Amino acid sequence: MGRPSDAREQLIGAAKEMIHSNSYEAVSVDQLCAAASVGKSSFYHFFSSKQELVLVALESRWQQFEELVLKPSFSEDLPPQAQLLRLFDLSWRGQQVQLQASGHVRGCPFGNLVLEMSTQDEAIRTLLTTFFQQWLGYFERMLREAKKQGIVAETLDIPVTAQALLAYFEGAMLLAKGRNDPALIRTLRDGTLLVMQYQEAS
Amino acid sequence: MGRPSDAREQLIGAAKEMIHSNSYEAVSVDQLCAAASVGKSSFYHFFSSKQELVLVALESRWQQFEELVLKPSFSEDLPPQAQLLRLFDLSWRGQQVQLQASGHVRGCPFGNLVLEMSTQDEAIRTLLTTFFQQWLGYFERMLREAKKQGIVAETLDIPVTAQALLAYFEGAMLLAKGRNDPALIRTLRDGTLLVMQYQEAS
Repeated sequence: MGRPSDAREQLIGAAKEMIHSNSYEAVSVDQLCAAASVGKSSFYHFFSSKQELVLVALESRWQQFEELVLKPSFSEDLPPQAQLLRLFDLSWRGQQVQLQASGHVRGCPFGNLVLEMSTQDEAIRTLLTTFFQQWLGYFERMLREAKKQGIVAETLDIPVTAQALLAYFEGAMLLAKGRNDPALIRTLRDGTLLVMQYQEAS
Repeated sequence: MGRPSDAREQLIGAAKEMIHSNSYEAVSVDQLCAAASVGKSSFYHFFSSKQELVLVALESRWQQFEELVLKPSFSEDLPPQAQLLRLFDLSWRGQQVQLQASGHVRGCPFGNLVLEMSTQDEAIRTLLTTFFQQWLGYFERMLREAKKQGIVAETLDIPVTAQALLAYFEGAMLLAKGRNDPALIRTLRDGTLLVMQYQEAS
Protein backbone atom coordinates (compact mmCIF):
# COMPACT_ATOMS: atom_id res chain seq x y z
CA MET A 1 0.00 0.00 0.00
CA GLY A 2 1.18 3.52 -0.81
CA ARG A 3 0.76 6.66 1.28
CA PRO A 4 -2.78 7.25 2.53
CA SER A 5 -3.04 10.25 0.22
CA ASP A 6 -2.48 7.89 -2.73
CA ALA A 7 -5.40 5.66 -1.75
CA ARG A 8 -8.01 8.09 -3.00
CA GLU A 9 -6.30 8.42 -6.38
CA GLN A 10 -5.86 4.65 -6.63
CA LEU A 11 -9.58 4.16 -6.03
CA ILE A 12 -10.49 6.77 -8.65
CA GLY A 13 -8.15 5.09 -11.14
CA ALA A 14 -9.59 1.66 -10.40
CA ALA A 15 -13.14 2.93 -10.83
CA LYS A 16 -12.36 4.54 -14.18
CA GLU A 17 -10.68 1.42 -15.48
CA MET A 18 -13.00 -1.27 -14.13
CA ILE A 19 -16.30 0.42 -14.90
CA HIS A 20 -15.25 1.22 -18.44
CA SER A 21 -14.14 -2.42 -18.89
CA ASN A 22 -17.27 -3.89 -17.35
CA SER A 23 -20.21 -1.83 -16.16
CA TYR A 24 -21.29 0.13 -13.10
CA GLU A 25 -23.32 -2.66 -11.54
CA ALA A 26 -20.80 -5.39 -12.31
CA VAL A 27 -18.10 -3.80 -10.14
CA SER A 28 -18.37 -3.97 -6.34
CA VAL A 29 -16.71 -1.88 -3.66
CA ASP A 30 -14.73 -4.99 -2.67
CA GLN A 31 -13.41 -5.36 -6.20
CA LEU A 32 -12.52 -1.68 -6.39
CA CYS A 33 -10.64 -1.91 -3.10
CA ALA A 34 -8.77 -5.02 -4.27
CA ALA A 35 -7.81 -3.43 -7.58
CA ALA A 36 -6.63 -0.28 -5.82
CA SER A 37 -4.85 -2.22 -3.02
CA VAL A 38 -6.85 -0.18 -0.53
CA GLY A 39 -8.64 -1.47 2.56
CA LYS A 40 -12.39 -1.10 2.88
CA SER A 41 -12.07 1.28 5.83
CA SER A 42 -9.89 3.52 3.66
CA PHE A 43 -12.55 3.41 0.97
CA TYR A 44 -15.18 4.69 3.38
CA HIS A 45 -12.78 7.29 4.71
CA PHE A 46 -12.75 8.89 1.26
CA PHE A 47 -16.13 7.99 -0.21
CA SER A 48 -19.54 7.37 1.30
CA SER A 49 -20.52 4.92 -1.44
CA LYS A 50 -19.62 3.45 -4.81
CA GLN A 51 -21.85 6.08 -6.36
CA GLU A 52 -19.84 8.90 -4.80
CA LEU A 53 -16.56 7.41 -6.05
CA VAL A 54 -17.97 6.93 -9.53
CA LEU A 55 -19.20 10.52 -9.72
CA VAL A 56 -15.65 11.69 -8.93
CA ALA A 57 -14.14 9.15 -11.35
CA LEU A 58 -16.47 10.33 -14.12
CA GLU A 59 -15.42 13.96 -13.60
CA SER A 60 -11.81 12.87 -13.92
CA ARG A 61 -12.61 10.77 -17.01
CA TRP A 62 -14.39 13.74 -18.58
CA GLN A 63 -11.42 16.05 -18.01
CA GLN A 64 -9.14 13.48 -19.66
CA PHE A 65 -11.53 13.15 -22.59
CA GLU A 66 -11.62 16.89 -23.07
CA GLU A 67 -7.81 17.14 -23.02
CA LEU A 68 -7.04 14.08 -25.11
CA VAL A 69 -9.93 14.02 -27.58
CA LEU A 70 -12.21 17.06 -27.64
CA LYS A 71 -9.65 19.87 -27.51
CA PRO A 72 -7.32 18.29 -30.11
CA SER A 73 -10.33 17.52 -32.34
CA PHE A 74 -12.11 20.84 -32.11
CA SER A 75 -8.95 22.83 -32.67
CA GLU A 76 -9.48 26.22 -34.29
CA ASP A 77 -6.46 25.49 -36.47
CA LEU A 78 -8.53 22.93 -38.35
CA PRO A 79 -11.33 23.55 -40.85
CA PRO A 80 -14.76 22.61 -39.40
CA GLN A 81 -15.09 19.37 -41.36
CA ALA A 82 -11.61 18.27 -40.33
CA GLN A 83 -12.56 18.82 -36.68
CA LEU A 84 -15.38 16.30 -37.01
CA LEU A 85 -13.23 13.80 -38.87
CA ARG A 86 -10.51 14.09 -36.23
CA LEU A 87 -13.03 13.32 -33.48
CA PHE A 88 -13.84 10.07 -35.27
CA ASP A 89 -10.19 9.30 -36.02
CA LEU A 90 -9.00 9.84 -32.46
CA SER A 91 -11.88 7.74 -31.15
CA TRP A 92 -11.18 4.98 -33.66
CA ARG A 93 -7.53 4.88 -32.60
CA GLY A 94 -8.47 4.94 -28.92
CA GLN A 95 -10.79 1.98 -29.35
CA GLN A 96 -8.13 0.12 -31.32
CA VAL A 97 -5.71 0.56 -28.42
CA GLN A 98 -8.36 -0.77 -26.03
CA LEU A 99 -9.08 -3.74 -28.26
CA GLN A 100 -5.40 -4.63 -28.48
CA ALA A 101 -4.91 -4.24 -24.73
CA SER A 102 -8.05 -5.98 -23.49
CA GLY A 103 -9.63 -7.86 -26.39
CA HIS A 104 -12.64 -5.56 -26.19
CA VAL A 105 -13.91 -2.37 -27.76
CA ARG A 106 -15.06 -0.65 -24.58
CA GLY A 107 -16.92 2.19 -26.27
CA CYS A 108 -17.62 5.66 -24.96
CA PRO A 109 -17.40 5.68 -21.15
CA PHE A 110 -20.17 8.29 -20.98
CA GLY A 111 -22.53 6.70 -23.50
CA ASN A 112 -22.10 3.34 -21.77
CA LEU A 113 -23.30 4.75 -18.46
CA VAL A 114 -26.08 6.80 -20.04
CA LEU A 115 -27.67 3.58 -21.23
CA GLU A 116 -26.87 1.52 -18.16
CA MET A 117 -27.72 4.03 -15.44
CA SER A 118 -30.15 6.72 -16.64
CA THR A 119 -33.25 4.94 -15.35
CA GLN A 120 -31.52 3.88 -12.15
CA ASP A 121 -29.42 6.70 -10.75
CA GLU A 122 -30.47 10.30 -11.13
CA ALA A 123 -27.16 11.73 -9.86
CA ILE A 124 -25.18 9.80 -12.48
CA ARG A 125 -27.68 10.67 -15.21
CA THR A 126 -27.55 14.34 -14.32
CA LEU A 127 -23.74 14.44 -14.30
CA LEU A 128 -23.59 12.71 -17.69
CA THR A 129 -26.08 15.26 -19.01
CA THR A 130 -23.75 18.09 -18.02
CA PHE A 131 -20.88 16.41 -19.89
CA PHE A 132 -23.04 16.02 -22.99
CA GLN A 133 -24.03 19.69 -22.72
CA GLN A 134 -20.36 20.68 -22.70
CA TRP A 135 -19.69 18.35 -25.64
CA LEU A 136 -22.55 19.96 -27.57
CA GLY A 137 -20.80 23.27 -26.96
CA TYR A 138 -17.78 22.03 -28.95
CA PHE A 139 -20.02 21.01 -31.84
CA GLU A 140 -21.84 24.34 -31.68
CA ARG A 141 -18.66 26.41 -31.82
CA MET A 142 -17.52 24.40 -34.85
CA LEU A 143 -20.92 24.92 -36.52
CA ARG A 144 -20.88 28.67 -35.89
CA GLU A 145 -17.51 28.81 -37.61
CA ALA A 146 -18.81 26.64 -40.46
CA LYS A 147 -21.72 29.05 -40.90
CA LYS A 148 -19.37 32.02 -40.93
CA GLN A 149 -17.31 30.32 -43.63
CA GLY A 150 -20.40 29.45 -45.70
CA ILE A 151 -19.80 25.71 -45.31
CA VAL A 152 -23.30 25.15 -43.93
CA ALA A 153 -26.55 26.93 -44.69
CA GLU A 154 -27.24 30.29 -43.11
CA THR A 155 -30.51 28.78 -41.83
CA LEU A 156 -28.81 25.82 -40.09
CA ASP A 157 -30.31 25.15 -36.65
CA ILE A 158 -27.09 24.94 -34.66
CA PRO A 159 -28.41 23.37 -31.41
CA VAL A 160 -30.36 20.67 -33.28
CA THR A 161 -27.43 19.93 -35.60
CA ALA A 162 -25.08 19.62 -32.63
CA GLN A 163 -27.44 17.06 -31.08
CA ALA A 164 -27.60 15.19 -34.40
CA LEU A 165 -23.79 15.11 -34.60
CA LEU A 166 -23.48 13.82 -31.04
CA ALA A 167 -26.18 11.20 -31.71
CA TYR A 168 -24.38 10.01 -34.83
CA PHE A 169 -21.07 9.78 -32.98
CA GLU A 170 -22.53 7.92 -29.99
CA GLY A 171 -24.38 5.54 -32.31
CA ALA A 172 -21.21 4.75 -34.25
CA MET A 173 -19.42 4.00 -30.97
CA LEU A 174 -22.33 1.77 -29.90
CA LEU A 175 -22.28 -0.27 -33.11
CA ALA A 176 -18.49 -0.61 -32.91
CA LYS A 177 -18.77 -1.93 -29.36
CA GLY A 178 -21.51 -4.36 -30.41
CA ARG A 179 -19.37 -5.73 -33.23
CA ASN A 180 -16.23 -5.51 -31.10
CA ASP A 181 -14.62 -3.87 -34.10
CA PRO A 182 -13.32 -0.30 -34.05
CA ALA A 183 -13.07 -0.20 -37.85
CA LEU A 184 -16.74 0.77 -38.03
CA ILE A 185 -15.93 4.13 -36.39
CA ARG A 186 -13.54 4.84 -39.23
CA THR A 187 -16.00 3.56 -41.85
CA LEU A 188 -18.81 5.76 -40.58
CA ARG A 189 -16.82 8.95 -40.04
CA ASP A 190 -17.69 10.55 -43.38
CA GLY A 191 -21.39 10.45 -42.48
CA THR A 192 -20.72 13.18 -39.97
CA LEU A 193 -20.18 15.60 -42.88
CA LEU A 194 -23.72 14.93 -44.04
CA VAL A 195 -25.18 15.35 -40.58
CA MET A 196 -23.52 18.75 -40.22
CA GLN A 197 -25.64 19.92 -43.18
CA TYR A 198 -28.76 19.26 -41.09
CA GLN A 199 -32.05 20.47 -42.47
CA GLU A 200 -35.66 19.89 -41.60
CA ALA A 201 -37.69 17.72 -43.93
CA SER A 202 -39.84 19.81 -46.24
CA MET B 1 -49.22 -19.04 -8.86
CA GLY B 2 -50.56 -20.15 -12.24
CA ARG B 3 -50.12 -23.47 -14.03
CA PRO B 4 -46.52 -24.69 -14.21
CA SER B 5 -46.57 -24.09 -17.98
CA ASP B 6 -47.24 -20.42 -17.25
CA ALA B 7 -44.18 -20.07 -15.03
CA ARG B 8 -41.76 -20.05 -17.94
CA GLU B 9 -43.73 -17.32 -19.73
CA GLN B 10 -44.03 -15.30 -16.53
CA LEU B 11 -40.26 -15.41 -16.08
CA ILE B 12 -39.67 -14.35 -19.67
CA GLY B 13 -42.10 -11.47 -19.25
CA ALA B 14 -40.48 -10.40 -15.98
CA ALA B 15 -37.01 -10.48 -17.56
CA LYS B 16 -38.12 -8.36 -20.52
CA GLU B 17 -39.74 -5.79 -18.30
CA MET B 18 -37.23 -5.57 -15.46
CA ILE B 19 -34.07 -5.57 -17.56
CA HIS B 20 -35.41 -2.90 -19.87
CA SER B 21 -36.39 -0.80 -16.83
CA ASN B 22 -33.09 -1.27 -15.02
CA SER B 23 -30.15 -3.20 -16.49
CA TYR B 24 -28.94 -6.78 -16.80
CA GLU B 25 -26.68 -6.70 -13.77
CA ALA B 26 -29.13 -4.82 -11.57
CA VAL B 27 -31.73 -7.60 -11.71
CA SER B 28 -31.17 -10.82 -9.75
CA VAL B 29 -32.71 -14.27 -10.18
CA ASP B 30 -34.49 -13.72 -6.85
CA GLN B 31 -36.05 -10.49 -8.11
CA LEU B 32 -37.10 -12.15 -11.37
CA CYS B 33 -38.73 -15.01 -9.43
CA ALA B 34 -40.54 -12.56 -7.14
CA ALA B 35 -41.82 -10.46 -10.05
CA ALA B 36 -43.00 -13.59 -11.87
CA SER B 37 -44.47 -15.17 -8.70
CA VAL B 38 -42.40 -18.25 -9.44
CA GLY B 39 -40.30 -20.26 -6.96
CA LYS B 40 -36.58 -20.54 -7.42
CA SER B 41 -36.77 -24.28 -8.05
CA SER B 42 -39.20 -23.56 -10.89
CA PHE B 43 -36.76 -21.04 -12.29
CA TYR B 44 -34.00 -23.64 -12.43
CA HIS B 45 -36.41 -26.17 -13.91
CA PHE B 46 -36.77 -23.94 -16.96
CA PHE B 47 -33.46 -22.07 -17.11
CA SER B 48 -29.92 -22.95 -16.10
CA SER B 49 -29.05 -19.31 -15.34
CA LYS B 50 -30.14 -15.70 -15.60
CA GLN B 51 -28.15 -15.51 -18.80
CA GLU B 52 -30.15 -18.32 -20.39
CA LEU B 53 -33.46 -16.67 -19.45
CA VAL B 54 -32.29 -13.33 -20.79
CA LEU B 55 -31.22 -14.83 -24.12
CA VAL B 56 -34.76 -16.26 -24.50
CA ALA B 57 -36.33 -13.00 -23.32
CA LEU B 58 -34.27 -11.03 -25.85
CA GLU B 59 -35.43 -13.28 -28.69
CA SER B 60 -39.02 -12.65 -27.63
CA ARG B 61 -38.36 -8.90 -27.35
CA TRP B 62 -36.83 -8.86 -30.81
CA GLN B 63 -39.84 -10.60 -32.35
CA GLN B 64 -42.12 -8.03 -30.72
CA PHE B 65 -39.95 -5.20 -32.00
CA GLU B 66 -40.05 -6.58 -35.53
CA GLU B 67 -43.85 -6.92 -35.43
CA LEU B 68 -44.63 -3.64 -33.69
CA VAL B 69 -41.94 -1.32 -35.04
CA LEU B 70 -39.80 -2.63 -37.90
CA LYS B 71 -42.48 -4.22 -40.10
CA PRO B 72 -44.92 -1.30 -39.80
CA SER B 73 -42.06 1.17 -40.42
CA PHE B 74 -40.41 -0.57 -43.34
CA SER B 75 -43.69 -1.16 -45.12
CA GLU B 76 -43.43 -1.37 -48.89
CA ASP B 77 -46.58 0.74 -49.08
CA LEU B 78 -44.55 3.73 -47.89
CA PRO B 79 -41.95 5.75 -49.84
CA PRO B 80 -38.40 5.08 -48.59
CA GLN B 81 -38.07 8.38 -46.73
CA ALA B 82 -41.41 7.85 -44.99
CA GLN B 83 -40.21 4.44 -43.80
CA LEU B 84 -37.33 6.07 -41.97
CA LEU B 85 -39.50 8.81 -40.52
CA ARG B 86 -42.01 6.23 -39.31
CA LEU B 87 -39.27 4.32 -37.49
CA PHE B 88 -38.45 7.48 -35.56
CA ASP B 89 -42.11 8.36 -34.99
CA LEU B 90 -43.05 4.92 -33.66
CA SER B 91 -39.98 4.93 -31.41
CA TRP B 92 -40.74 8.42 -30.16
CA ARG B 93 -44.30 7.39 -29.27
CA GLY B 94 -43.09 4.17 -27.65
CA GLN B 95 -40.68 6.08 -25.43
CA GLN B 96 -43.41 8.58 -24.55
CA VAL B 97 -45.62 5.73 -23.37
CA GLN B 98 -42.75 4.40 -21.25
CA LEU B 99 -42.06 7.81 -19.79
CA GLN B 100 -45.70 8.27 -18.84
CA ALA B 101 -45.93 4.79 -17.34
CA SER B 102 -42.64 4.68 -15.45
CA GLY B 103 -41.19 8.20 -15.33
CA HIS B 104 -38.27 7.04 -17.47
CA VAL B 105 -37.27 6.92 -21.09
CA ARG B 106 -35.97 3.37 -21.16
CA GLY B 107 -34.38 3.56 -24.60
CA CYS B 108 -33.72 0.76 -27.05
CA PRO B 109 -33.66 -2.60 -25.23
CA PHE B 110 -31.01 -3.89 -27.63
CA GLY B 111 -28.77 -0.81 -27.63
CA ASN B 112 -28.93 -0.73 -23.83
CA LEU B 113 -27.55 -4.25 -23.55
CA VAL B 114 -24.99 -3.73 -26.32
CA LEU B 115 -23.34 -1.05 -24.19
CA GLU B 116 -23.82 -2.78 -20.85
CA MET B 117 -22.89 -6.33 -21.82
CA SER B 118 -20.67 -6.48 -24.92
CA THR B 119 -17.41 -6.61 -22.98
CA GLN B 120 -18.85 -8.96 -20.37
CA ASP B 121 -20.96 -11.65 -22.02
CA GLU B 122 -20.09 -13.01 -25.42
CA ALA B 123 -23.36 -14.96 -25.82
CA ILE B 124 -25.44 -11.83 -25.25
CA ARG B 125 -23.19 -9.73 -27.50
CA THR B 126 -23.43 -12.32 -30.28
CA LEU B 127 -27.21 -12.54 -30.07
CA LEU B 128 -27.55 -8.74 -30.17
CA THR B 129 -25.28 -8.70 -33.21
CA THR B 130 -27.64 -11.06 -35.05
CA PHE B 131 -30.56 -8.72 -34.27
CA PHE B 132 -28.63 -5.73 -35.58
CA GLN B 133 -27.79 -7.70 -38.73
CA GLN B 134 -31.49 -8.35 -39.30
CA TRP B 135 -32.27 -4.70 -38.64
CA LEU B 136 -29.63 -3.65 -41.18
CA GLY B 137 -31.48 -5.86 -43.66
CA TYR B 138 -34.58 -3.65 -43.30
CA PHE B 139 -32.51 -0.52 -43.96
CA GLU B 140 -30.83 -2.19 -46.93
CA ARG B 141 -34.11 -3.21 -48.56
CA MET B 142 -35.38 0.36 -48.17
CA LEU B 143 -32.15 1.73 -49.67
CA ARG B 144 -32.30 -0.64 -52.66
CA GLU B 145 -35.81 0.64 -53.35
CA ALA B 146 -34.61 4.24 -52.93
CA LYS B 147 -31.85 3.60 -55.43
CA LYS B 148 -34.33 2.07 -57.89
CA GLN B 149 -36.52 5.18 -57.57
CA GLY B 150 -33.56 7.54 -58.02
CA ILE B 151 -33.96 8.97 -54.50
CA VAL B 152 -30.35 8.18 -53.61
CA ALA B 153 -27.24 8.14 -55.79
CA GLU B 154 -26.59 5.15 -58.02
CA THR B 155 -23.17 4.91 -56.34
CA LEU B 156 -24.58 4.75 -52.77
CA ASP B 157 -22.81 2.13 -50.65
CA ILE B 158 -25.86 0.35 -49.26
CA PRO B 159 -24.23 -1.67 -46.43
CA VAL B 160 -22.32 1.35 -45.11
CA THR B 161 -25.37 3.61 -45.35
CA ALA B 162 -27.48 1.05 -43.49
CA GLN B 163 -24.90 1.05 -40.68
CA ALA B 164 -24.91 4.85 -40.64
CA LEU B 165 -28.71 4.91 -40.39
CA LEU B 166 -28.70 2.39 -37.54
CA ALA B 167 -25.94 4.35 -35.77
CA TYR B 168 -27.91 7.58 -36.08
CA PHE B 169 -31.07 5.93 -34.75
CA GLU B 170 -29.31 4.29 -31.79
CA GLY B 171 -27.54 7.54 -30.97
CA ALA B 172 -30.80 9.47 -30.97
CA MET B 173 -32.31 6.89 -28.60
CA LEU B 174 -29.22 7.18 -26.36
CA LEU B 175 -29.44 10.96 -26.12
CA ALA B 176 -33.18 10.78 -25.44
CA LYS B 177 -32.57 8.32 -22.60
CA GLY B 178 -29.81 10.52 -21.18
CA ARG B 179 -32.10 13.56 -21.19
CA ASN B 180 -35.07 11.47 -20.12
CA ASP B 181 -36.97 13.24 -22.87
CA PRO B 182 -38.41 11.40 -25.87
CA ALA B 183 -38.95 14.67 -27.76
CA LEU B 184 -35.35 14.52 -28.98
CA ILE B 185 -36.18 11.42 -31.06
CA ARG B 186 -38.80 13.46 -32.87
CA THR B 187 -36.50 16.47 -33.18
CA LEU B 188 -33.70 14.43 -34.72
CA ARG B 189 -35.78 12.33 -37.09
CA ASP B 190 -35.23 14.52 -40.15
CA GLY B 191 -31.48 13.93 -39.92
CA THR B 192 -32.08 10.39 -41.06
CA LEU B 193 -32.95 11.76 -44.52
CA LEU B 194 -29.47 13.25 -44.76
CA VAL B 195 -27.78 10.08 -43.58
CA MET B 196 -29.56 8.05 -46.24
CA GLN B 197 -27.71 10.15 -48.85
CA TYR B 198 -24.42 8.79 -47.51
CA GLN B 199 -21.27 9.57 -49.46
CA GLU B 200 -17.61 9.24 -48.80
CA ALA B 201 -15.66 12.42 -48.17
CA SER B 202 -13.78 13.50 -51.24
